[in-house]
Amino acid sequence: MYIAMNRFKVVPGSEEAFEEIWRNRESRLEEMPGFVEFHLLRGPAGEDCTLYASHTVWESEAHFRAWTRSEQFRSAHRNAGANKPLYLGHPQFEGFEAVPGIRVGRAAEVGG
Amino acid sequence: MYIAMNRFKVVPGSEEAFEEIWRNRESRLEEMPGFVEFHLLRGPAGEDCTLYASHTVWESEAHFRAWTRSEQFRSAHRNAGANKPLYLGHPQFEGFEAVPGIRVGRAAEVGG
Repeated sequence: MYIAMNRFKVVPGSEEAFEEIWRNRESRLEEMPGFVEFHLLRGPAGEDCTLYASHTVWESEAHFRAWTRSEQFRSAHRNAGANKPLYLGHPQFEGFEAVPGIRVGRAAEVGG
Repeated sequence: MYIAMNRFKVVPGSEEAFEEIWRNRESRLEEMPGFVEFHLLRGPAGEDCTLYASHTVWESEAHFRAWTRSEQFRSAHRNAGANKPLYLGHPQFEGFEAVPGIRVGRAAEVGG
């Protein structure tokens, strides 16, 4: 299991507009092999920004990499620049690999 | 849905020992109402550390808060101090609330 997160520092007062963009965004993730689930996460609010993170679960890093080279990816990011005034700096990417043999839980295992 | 993450900056060369601790840790998370799933995630490796994150999914923040006040929590963290030489500084906690109405995916919705 691989989790791709992009961290956004959203300017105070722009939270609702930022969420609205994601709510209205047309997602083609479900067309992609190995895609499991996507959420937009709202994190801690600080004085100068509120942390948000896109949180996409993939079966493997290879599936994620294939998406970044796809037409669906280009289409999803075509207008991303227009939203830049809503957050500070650039989104910060972090990719995480689930360490095997440590999972606890009731949900079905995804991708070993 | 609520995701509780604790970020650890693991010292180079200590990755295997750090993972081993989590692998052998007795977890009582499954006893807790509202617990969904736990993974240990391995993130980007830098020059001075490798980022790891514990990643626990709960139905709600209230369920997570109840766990932090539980006997199961105290029991899980009793020997945590002994592992401190494996990582730099203190683990950094970040709690995330899934923004409603944005989820994409095939898995069943958890906790609305």
